[in-house]
Amino acid sequence: MASSSTFSPWALNGSNTLASNSATKSYTNFICNYLKLGSSRAFQNSKEIIINPRQGKLGLCQALEVGTKSSIPTGSKFQLDDIIEAQQFDRDTLSAIFDVALEMEKIEKNSGGSQILKGYLMATLFYEPSTRTRLSFESAMKRLGGEVLTTENAREFSSAAKGETLEDTIRTVEGYSDIIVMRHFESGAAKRAALTASIPVINAGDGPGQHPTQALLDVYTIQREIGKLDGIKVGLVGDLANGRTVRSLAYLLAKFNDVKIYFVSPEVVKMKDDIKDYLTSEGVKWEESVDLMDVASKCDVVYQTRIQRERFGERNDLYEEARGKYIVNRDVLGVMQKHAVVMHPLPRLDEITVDVDDDPRAAYFRQAKNGLYIRMALLKLLLLGW
Amino acid sequence: MASSSTFSPWALNGSNTLASNSATKSYTNFICNYLKLGSSRAFQNSKEIIINPRQGKLGLCQALEVGTKSSIPTGSKFQLDDIIEAQQFDRDTLSAIFDVALEMEKIEKNSGGSQILKGYLMATLFYEPSTRTRLSFESAMKRLGGEVLTTENAREFSSAAKGETLEDTIRTVEGYSDIIVMRHFESGAAKRAALTASIPVINAGDGPGQHPTQALLDVYTIQREIGKLDGIKVGLVGDLANGRTVRSLAYLLAKFNDVKIYFVSPEVVKMKDDIKDYLTSEGVKWEESVDLMDVASKCDVVYQTRIQRERFGERNDLYEEARGKYIVNRDVLGVMQKHAVVMHPLPRLDEITVDVDDDPRAAYFRQAKNGLYIRMALLKLLLLGW
Amino acid sequence: MASSSTFSPWALNGSNTLASNSATKSYTNFICNYLKLGSSRAFQNSKEIIINPRQGKLGLCQALEVGTKSSIPTGSKFQLDDIIEAQQFDRDTLSAIFDVALEMEKIEKNSGGSQILKGYLMATLFYEPSTRTRLSFESAMKRLGGEVLTTENAREFSSAAKGETLEDTIRTVEGYSDIIVMRHFESGAAKRAALTASIPVINAGDGPGQHPTQALLDVYTIQREIGKLDGIKVGLVGDLANGRTVRSLAYLLAKFNDVKIYFVSPEVVKMKDDIKDYLTSEGVKWEESVDLMDVASKCDVVYQTRIQRERFGERNDLYEEARGKYIVNRDVLGVMQKHAVVMHPLPRLDEITVDVDDDPRAAYFRQAKNGLYIRMALLKLLLLGW
Repeated sequence: MASSSTFSPWALNGSNTLASNSATKSYTNFICNYLKLGSSRAFQNSKEIIINPRQGKLGLCQALEVGTKSSIPTGSKFQLDDIIEAQQFDRDTLSAIFDVALEMEKIEKNSGGSQILKGYLMATLFYEPSTRTRLSFESAMKRLGGEVLTTENAREFSSAAKGETLEDTIRTVEGYSDIIVMRHFESGAAKRAALTASIPVINAGDGPGQHPTQALLDVYTIQREIGKLDGIKVGLVGDLANGRTVRSLAYLLAKFNDVKIYFVSPEVVKMKDDIKDYLTSEGVKWEESVDLMDVASKCDVVYQTRIQRERFGERNDLYEEARGKYIVNRDVLGVMQKHAVVMHPLPRLDEITVDVDDDPRAAYFRQAKNGLYIRMALLKLLLLGW
Repeated sequence: MASSSTFSPWALNGSNTLASNSATKSYTNFICNYLKLGSSRAFQNSKEIIINPRQGKLGLCQALEVGTKSSIPTGSKFQLDDIIEAQQFDRDTLSAIFDVALEMEKIEKNSGGSQILKGYLMATLFYEPSTRTRLSFESAMKRLGGEVLTTENAREFSSAAKGETLEDTIRTVEGYSDIIVMRHFESGAAKRAALTASIPVINAGDGPGQHPTQALLDVYTIQREIGKLDGIKVGLVGDLANGRTVRSLAYLLAKFNDVKIYFVSPEVVKMKDDIKDYLTSEGVKWEESVDLMDVASKCDVVYQTRIQRERFGERNDLYEEARGKYIVNRDVLGVMQKHAVVMHPLPRLDEITVDVDDDPRAAYFRQAKNGLYIRMALLKLLLLGW
Repeated sequence: MASSSTFSPWALNGSNTLASNSATKSYTNFICNYLKLGSSRAFQNSKEIIINPRQGKLGLCQALEVGTKSSIPTGSKFQLDDIIEAQQFDRDTLSAIFDVALEMEKIEKNSGGSQILKGYLMATLFYEPSTRTRLSFESAMKRLGGEVLTTENAREFSSAAKGETLEDTIRTVEGYSDIIVMRHFESGAAKRAALTASIPVINAGDGPGQHPTQALLDVYTIQREIGKLDGIKVGLVGDLANGRTVRSLAYLLAKFNDVKIYFVSPEVVKMKDDIKDYLTSEGVKWEESVDLMDVASKCDVVYQTRIQRERFGERNDLYEEARGKYIVNRDVLGVMQKHAVVMHPLPRLDEITVDVDDDPRAAYFRQAKNGLYIRMALLKLLLLGW
């Protein structure tokens, strides 16, 4: 728990992105009764604190730890008020959410979808465009019968001349909708929004901070593709310094047992020490390698990422060198095990060659689709409960 | 009535914003039969003309004045074809609309909302972005089961290279929808749209011209918060020269009895003479004051507004001086009566300090929410009638 | 058929816009069984190949030619997987689609619309804004009870820094929706999208390439207004060199019997030889004329177009000369036959004077509305079949 309040794996260079650690800490002292279950459960055995920024948002003290979904009666309140950062999820909560995501997959594949969110209104409040993420959330809401208010120019709320605070904007938008999905350019913005809003807030990415639904869909994809999370071997490839995706993934994988992680990256974008230290402290085995073929032959998951040109500024030579170094192509596929998969958060450039796409082990478009199911599950849980 | 055609309280500097006074005047000669009520009612006792720009849009001559809602049978046609300017509303119509808005509040608070506008399609045709207003209208439509076509780049219809007229755009858009909500940068644009369209048009702000739904929600908020409009004392504070909001509010308040208005503003943005003269001619008491504390202690409503930097051009010194002069803070709250409220059209900067927000007399976020109910009411009335 | 693969009437200057002629040709060798009809039909007597870029998208070999709609059982699969270019449609298919469009008109005019597409989700993937076209498609979808995911900044998917391919974007978006309506700035983009997608794609304009739904609504409008397509006389007026609309129309008209086409245009924007040669080869009579009054007096349809300033670059003198040359005004109306109509793809500038609008023969706003019916019909057919 201490690690949770002193360590932020999503921060760049290990700086702490949590806006209000003191507020966070106060929740560790909760004695929570899981009222709807009709039994008192002490907070116990949790690696991570589940942040509940609005104590009593619905007049309930939240359980910080729940059992697997099978122990949660249908209709029970979801134990989270908001989805702000991946630290909120312990492995039991993850497992229960994944069960719901699987139900959502069944719903989506039956044409006609569901109407369980009919009458609910989601506001997509995007301070910067992210069409992929926005469409995924909006599709999720509509597949469940809900409606959407869209804005991709939320900055206009607080334009230079006007200067409205995020908090004031949230107080306005919460009057128009039942749930807010927010994308922002500033780390910590989602937590500020959640602290203000009386309706649920989902963080759809706040600058260099968090993008928790991406983290969830990555772990869900591994579960779906490999069938397990304990005991897996994962190769993280590409830009490990700047990608919040791989940092989040490494962090979440540490919640599972006997995980082995390989880091394969150009020298200039190596995984930072904070994550390595964290993995070590959690007893997760990891090693760095310069041999993609060797790693690929051992892993269940090869998680490739894009080298982000925008991080290199003027140093185009460094970018070009880094970019071409580790490419997932048919040669890499050739050494991979039959059950293993290639993942990628998309968009990709040429770090996975197009001829890999047709191989059944190319999981990245299925992974994108899993984002839909995870978002459907979270919308359902936040609005209707279990 | 003459005052209606020679005086435009929303115009800056008293210039007349009505695009076609001659057209307006022609309606003053109507002898209208309120056909659906089955009785002939002569046009009488009306301070203001209700503009009905499309004679016989539905083949009916419109009543210019109606009784309170209790006298209007459910299902009767709404007496307005379009919502273009606040002058359209007399106090009886306002009162009846407010009754519907209150019903809408009940509908919105029951989860699941209503489906009374199912199958109706609203086009939000915005020639400039106004996210707050757009989301309010779109939420209103969706809370009633209706659907929305959105555009925030309606200027693209008439881009430089293409140059389509507003009228042609309206003739296209009316083919796709059942009601048009239009925001435009030119005063008078909404009336031009209404003259063209065969479906209802709601003005969501046309440049320095009108923003009638804002005017309605302000008056509705006073009614809801104070419980009456006759006999109230209102302090208008801040930028009284440029804010169309306070000008509209002063104008509408003149329809009620025994109203007293205080103007509190920096010298450089004082209320213009046209409104003062109008109030005097209508028998409304008003006075100017430089003492916000004194005014706050006497008023039922302190209506604060933002000093609009964009009006000061290069004169940043004047702006800074004006901006800091009258701030609503906890000291002001301290002298206000227990039943009184603080209102603000939003967005606010620091003209109301954040520590005021928690006081139950801070009504500005409730005021924003009332915009939803007023818009739900207007959509219902224009599409379905009473 | 050879003409189809060597001639592209929509290309500027006769250059071939088909992205993959070899792929196209391969389909000409299909032996197709119209499985749902339960009978084998040989490919025969077809002027044009119907492009079916995804062989077996639904596991069916597509019929390249069908009978009139009366011979198609309700519920049969639509013979097209995608709507990419006007060459896909032969006259029997056109006729059957027009029957469906007429049904759609009836549905749209009954308030409440239809719910036949309830549960279906359309993604409008616009790489450049085209508000008119987008609203028309979105209205069509919503009038049938379907839902819409909108993006007008699809370029963001492939922004400079990121560089995602169109194919990858399509693979993502097809995971969120049931049908994609795409507008793109590059000729051939729609076909690339269709080759990738496992769901239907409708081309809503791809640069200088195709805009097939515009072509269909033009022909449908002539059918609706004049009551026939065989034997009609059509005057194409204005910018015949650059307008893909008039090129498509000339091309589609060649499918009907005894058609006569007049070209009336300033010298600088004359109809290109490729279309003229094509018409000649198809036995369609055509002539060029400089006398608009004479042509107008003879024609069933005067199809006016806008001189596109953007085509003239710096040569403003040429633009101004071309622009004023052939104006449809009340004088032109005066010589037109009583049953004849004026059409225009919109937007218009002053090439049709405003005083023409009130004449019942001004068909251009009805034409825009017909675009709604055609799009409703295509959405219905692609998602539900006949």
